[in-house]
Amino acid sequence: MPGRPHLFVPGPTNVPDRVLRAMHRAQEDHRSSAFPELTQGLLRDLQPVFGSTRGRPFIFASTGTGMWEAALTNTLAPGDRVLAVRFGQFSHLFIDTAERLGFKVDVIDLEWGEAVDPARIAEALAADGAHAIKAVLLVHNETATGVTNDVADVREAIDSVGHPALLLVDGVSSIGSLAFRFDDWGVDVAICGSQKGFMMPAGLGMLCVSPKAMALVEHGRFPRAYFDLRPQVVHNDQGYFPYTPPLAHLFGLREALDMVAEQGMPAIVARHARLAEGVRRAVAAWELKLCARDPESRSNTVTAIVVPEGKDARQVIDHAYRRWDMALGSGLGRLNGKVFRIGHLGDLNAGMLLGALALTELALHDAGIAVPYGAGVAAAQRWYHESA
Amino acid sequence: MPGRPHLFVPGPTNVPDRVLRAMHRAQEDHRSSAFPELTQGLLRDLQPVFGSTRGRPFIFASTGTGMWEAALTNTLAPGDRVLAVRFGQFSHLFIDTAERLGFKVDVIDLEWGEAVDPARIAEALAADGAHAIKAVLLVHNETATGVTNDVADVREAIDSVGHPALLLVDGVSSIGSLAFRFDDWGVDVAICGSQKGFMMPAGLGMLCVSPKAMALVEHGRFPRAYFDLRPQVVHNDQGYFPYTPPLAHLFGLREALDMVAEQGMPAIVARHARLAEGVRRAVAAWELKLCARDPESRSNTVTAIVVPEGKDARQVIDHAYRRWDMALGSGLGRLNGKVFRIGHLGDLNAGMLLGALALTELALHDAGIAVPYGAGVAAAQRWYHESA
Amino acid sequence: MPGRPHLFVPGPTNVPDRVLRAMHRAQEDHRSSAFPELTQGLLRDLQPVFGSTRGRPFIFASTGTGMWEAALTNTLAPGDRVLAVRFGQFSHLFIDTAERLGFKVDVIDLEWGEAVDPARIAEALAADGAHAIKAVLLVHNETATGVTNDVADVREAIDSVGHPALLLVDGVSSIGSLAFRFDDWGVDVAICGSQKGFMMPAGLGMLCVSPKAMALVEHGRFPRAYFDLRPQVVHNDQGYFPYTPPLAHLFGLREALDMVAEQGMPAIVARHARLAEGVRRAVAAWELKLCARDPESRSNTVTAIVVPEGKDARQVIDHAYRRWDMALGSGLGRLNGKVFRIGHLGDLNAGMLLGALALTELALHDAGIAVPYGAGVAAAQRWYHESA
Amino acid sequence: MPGRPHLFVPGPTNVPDRVLRAMHRAQEDHRSSAFPELTQGLLRDLQPVFGSTRGRPFIFASTGTGMWEAALTNTLAPGDRVLAVRFGQFSHLFIDTAERLGFKVDVIDLEWGEAVDPARIAEALAADGAHAIKAVLLVHNETATGVTNDVADVREAIDSVGHPALLLVDGVSSIGSLAFRFDDWGVDVAICGSQKGFMMPAGLGMLCVSPKAMALVEHGRFPRAYFDLRPQVVHNDQGYFPYTPPLAHLFGLREALDMVAEQGMPAIVARHARLAEGVRRAVAAWELKLCARDPESRSNTVTAIVVPEGKDARQVIDHAYRRWDMALGSGLGRLNGKVFRIGHLGDLNAGMLLGALALTELALHDAGIAVPYGAGVAAAQRWYHESA
Repeated sequence: MPGRPHLFVPGPTNVPDRVLRAMHRAQEDHRSSAFPELTQGLLRDLQPVFGSTRGRPFIFASTGTGMWEAALTNTLAPGDRVLAVRFGQFSHLFIDTAERLGFKVDVIDLEWGEAVDPARIAEALAADGAHAIKAVLLVHNETATGVTNDVADVREAIDSVGHPALLLVDGVSSIGSLAFRFDDWGVDVAICGSQKGFMMPAGLGMLCVSPKAMALVEHGRFPRAYFDLRPQVVHNDQGYFPYTPPLAHLFGLREALDMVAEQGMPAIVARHARLAEGVRRAVAAWELKLCARDPESRSNTVTAIVVPEGKDARQVIDHAYRRWDMALGSGLGRLNGKVFRIGHLGDLNAGMLLGALALTELALHDAGIAVPYGAGVAAAQRWYHESA
Repeated sequence: MPGRPHLFVPGPTNVPDRVLRAMHRAQEDHRSSAFPELTQGLLRDLQPVFGSTRGRPFIFASTGTGMWEAALTNTLAPGDRVLAVRFGQFSHLFIDTAERLGFKVDVIDLEWGEAVDPARIAEALAADGAHAIKAVLLVHNETATGVTNDVADVREAIDSVGHPALLLVDGVSSIGSLAFRFDDWGVDVAICGSQKGFMMPAGLGMLCVSPKAMALVEHGRFPRAYFDLRPQVVHNDQGYFPYTPPLAHLFGLREALDMVAEQGMPAIVARHARLAEGVRRAVAAWELKLCARDPESRSNTVTAIVVPEGKDARQVIDHAYRRWDMALGSGLGRLNGKVFRIGHLGDLNAGMLLGALALTELALHDAGIAVPYGAGVAAAQRWYHESA
Repeated sequence: MPGRPHLFVPGPTNVPDRVLRAMHRAQEDHRSSAFPELTQGLLRDLQPVFGSTRGRPFIFASTGTGMWEAALTNTLAPGDRVLAVRFGQFSHLFIDTAERLGFKVDVIDLEWGEAVDPARIAEALAADGAHAIKAVLLVHNETATGVTNDVADVREAIDSVGHPALLLVDGVSSIGSLAFRFDDWGVDVAICGSQKGFMMPAGLGMLCVSPKAMALVEHGRFPRAYFDLRPQVVHNDQGYFPYTPPLAHLFGLREALDMVAEQGMPAIVARHARLAEGVRRAVAAWELKLCARDPESRSNTVTAIVVPEGKDARQVIDHAYRRWDMALGSGLGRLNGKVFRIGHLGDLNAGMLLGALALTELALHDAGIAVPYGAGVAAAQRWYHESA
Repeated sequence: MPGRPHLFVPGPTNVPDRVLRAMHRAQEDHRSSAFPELTQGLLRDLQPVFGSTRGRPFIFASTGTGMWEAALTNTLAPGDRVLAVRFGQFSHLFIDTAERLGFKVDVIDLEWGEAVDPARIAEALAADGAHAIKAVLLVHNETATGVTNDVADVREAIDSVGHPALLLVDGVSSIGSLAFRFDDWGVDVAICGSQKGFMMPAGLGMLCVSPKAMALVEHGRFPRAYFDLRPQVVHNDQGYFPYTPPLAHLFGLREALDMVAEQGMPAIVARHARLAEGVRRAVAAWELKLCARDPESRSNTVTAIVVPEGKDARQVIDHAYRRWDMALGSGLGRLNGKVFRIGHLGDLNAGMLLGALALTELALHDAGIAVPYGAGVAAAQRWYHESA
């Protein structure tokens, strides 16, 4: 189809031309004497995106999915017990990964659309007097439902009952877009990927690991190889990687981190909040419901929108794709057919989003959900004006 | 600014990624035995874009501006008299070019916003019993006012009085976007550039020359060198150029012509008409006036919009650029401050244009022209739905 | 430094412009209805590169290193015993990976530079009457020493003693460059990465799995998640991936596989053989020794060259890099300082390699190894002429 | 053919990846308030490449060929008389351009391969007591023969006879590669293009104009439009161009000028001298003759090599192209079949050139000129070592 396709899934996000250009580059010897400058610069500049000065970043040729495994296998022993909250497809898959790796997962199940109640975590940990639970697995921003949790409150809940469990946080759809304070929140391992806030193609998994968790890595007993942090430490300390790194992605990450530094994380966070509010006002103007129940927990990176009873969200997505060249996110798992999702993270501005809202209105019509033309757009416009 | 800038000037237009990729390529020997395949393919595939099977295309490292000179100097003798209509900045500059080259130009001046009345051309030519007028200079689509002329009618007017004048047509903002029938309309030289309907960066000027005009080229007495078609003929016939051609642009043109062939000129013309109608409906919803007076002559590649008395169109453009990262076209020459222009040609779709209309509404507000939020967007949406 | 750097490490290799261009592309929704065409085309076209019609290919965001883990954990049970031959750094690391994952490895240690003697494998397996050994781990082409093994002979050795062990083959520096006959050789899992014969940046790991091995995958008891083939099977069957795939690399792989198909694997194999022979003749002209002892096993993708006693290969590499902008491969592990390596795989031609040989002569001089200027180049030239 | 083609024509030259990347960028509004920063930076940074602080640079969408016309038509009146030396194909074409534009050219004809003798220019000018000769046309570096003239000597010759003729210099294959001192040498107009020392694709013509020549521009009587400097002056002064500029090339030029500034013109000039000397030593080792007679005038950007009597240089070029994927320059005009040319200008290093020399040896063999294998390479290597 002519013209630029409209990519509004919550990842992969739109890769800025600058990043694509940076990746379009001849390969180099990853063992050269010049290479450490690249490696060390990347690891250094990742820290502020995680909101950390004490945590240690790692970079893998992987995806966010692989980082779940890395977080778990580097800090836990075979068969360890962990606590996790399930409130959407990605928290479900994080749990599934842990179980497939043989960990025992105590699951707190919520309605999909709810945020985590820290009191329930405190309660579960309080009941674990023997400290059998070694880690709490938390998805910061549930991409499937558009719900953001308050990590600081979870940390407080853990601390409030004096439980030593590690806090392992999936920040795949938050880090680089939402405020993330690794140190302040006492996160032990934070996980992310390249294809969302980092504005890159998928292909990199990244971790930040606290000193407390690093101490466990060295003596970890879980059999592991590819995701083992130990050889990474040895090689990263010299500015290298233990195997041929994904160089094109490293070049892209260099550029992406430069862009982050130029804009500054506070401005990036504010931009995501402002753009997201426009989407929420559009949804309100459409008189549709958000999947995220609690206004406080509505995500600034993705909005999941519930279609009216009797309508099929897949129709919205399908018409958007085939008639209007726009990719919307589908309802995942049990939300399939019930919600569609607009991703509004990464390299985005008001004009792109207004175009997407206009197309969404057309696709809603196509799917038999006749919102007034321009209503959502107007609500978003008004907000963008007010907040400019 | 984050996100993709919104480019809605009527040229340069948005270059598709495919074309940029095609231009991103190592240079080659332009005298190699493999080179003619490129040259000859380009010249062959240019013909249908001009709507010609008999005309001969030429490609120059130049811009459309240079093609005015090429058209005039290859077909006319020094000091020749020509007839031209002035109804906007580009028809003005075409005349200016002719005068700077020493031709005598009989000018029919119209209000800027009007289309050419073929009767006036017929009248002027009828008065030239001696056939002193050697050519009629016509801008097909006046980019400054958003007015498209009916070239067939002009040809008919010339023929109706039995005048042998050549018909030299500037199709810079029409060819590749609007229907153009070089052969059927009896055009003698058609002129265009790469940065509009051809979806490329500026840097190529292209011509199509009728057999009648080609016959004049050989014996042309105007002193000329760079734009002389004679060495082009000699070298093009062998598949080469008389000097180092702009290879990156030739690679880009190859890809652009492939895209044109894939979509088909009729579909491209229909798409431009449909997208343009959405813009016009938005303008009507804003209760603003078009610069183009006659509904029949409203351009499908660019719309010039008149701001209300007492308002300054430059403010609209300035706010669009600085607050919303959108480039709109300015009012040129005597229209400066009175109109702003939306370019809607090249590689474009409904979503891109709806985003642009939404931003235009914001910029209108910023400039003190408070159209209802979403009103223009809604009008365009309705049309895109109806016409899908 | 001005001009194009000379990349002659045995991976990453020179990425053709076509592939870089193909990767320079907007992201897409990996769950769209159009996506399966990409996935299925890649998996289909990977088969002939592996030399297979029966094996099942898989693609991971990973590197070759990760594929060792995938091969082992998908086909073996925790603590299983395997047999492996160590004859260079990469066979060493394959073994190390297996051990870190808790497998028991019976190691046959060879001099580094020797090829595997199938008789020793047969002998070891014959001694395993209980069939405790579940797999034989074999590096097809040892990148550290420039030695290629005969996989067919190893398969024959296994069969000769009627042992049911799987044959897991690391083809990282062979597949896509050397003849590889997955089916004919009875390979059970073949492993490769994107950054060598596949002419891409690192970042993809690829596997081919035999029906016999696939049968084990389903009931595999090793705890695994990221590299688990089971969800890959489920999603690949529909044309998707179980998580966001590394799209830029998939686009690149599409182009690389098209290039492979255009040239044809037999021609690619023949080109590698021809180019490699030129390098070996140059080494002979320099009167230096190859690390690879047996002429039959000398690799057509990488040549490891032993520096004279008392000289330091690191000096050669260092001068090549700093003075001549050429990256040569270093001696790995116990060969550090004793050998340097020239990678001659991937998208390469005689002119590139002759330039590299000329620069190598300069770097040898710089390191105090005064070969006659042009001697190696002349030997290679003569061969390229003869064999043209 | 696999691997990177070897481009050794004296233009277009190898475009560095950095420049290609810079050109791979979205278009912008060339009338925006941000645009002057680009324009003014380019014009400012062009000056030092011309070796000027007083001259005024101009940039056109054109090629070097167009700049001949621009130089002549902006400074001369119709029918003016000029003096020119013909000593190769490009000096011939410069003269031809002048004649086609109606100027009267007094031609000093030399053997092709000779450099200009300033005494003959002085003599011709001395004979013109009436100062009818308005300009001297000089090709600084004759790309067809590999001969570089001494511009300072020519200026001295003009001054020695007190003649006021302008000095118009074609620096197409010298500027950006060889030392050029516009101010010191009293050049009035210097001409160049983007596709040689500027390391870009063809498509830009550039001029530098002295204050003396600028004074003539304003009152110039030659009918001109596209190449008229007057509107350029008006618009450039504001940071704009009188028509849509070739934006991709301007982005590329920005990057190229940054690279020039990083390396510094003295280092660039020295590199060209060093690389060229290696080629000349190779030719000597081959016992072939240079087209350039005088050692003092041998070009550091291109070497034209005479094949032995009875051999056909076209065979060398043809075999190089078809068998070895290397483009060599052909003999132009009367040198066709007698010489072949190696371009060694732009973004080049020793390794690239050694590869090219090795391939040239192969192609010479193919054409029946059996130079000893490696002989030229060895001679060049020795020199590159000595001069490192």
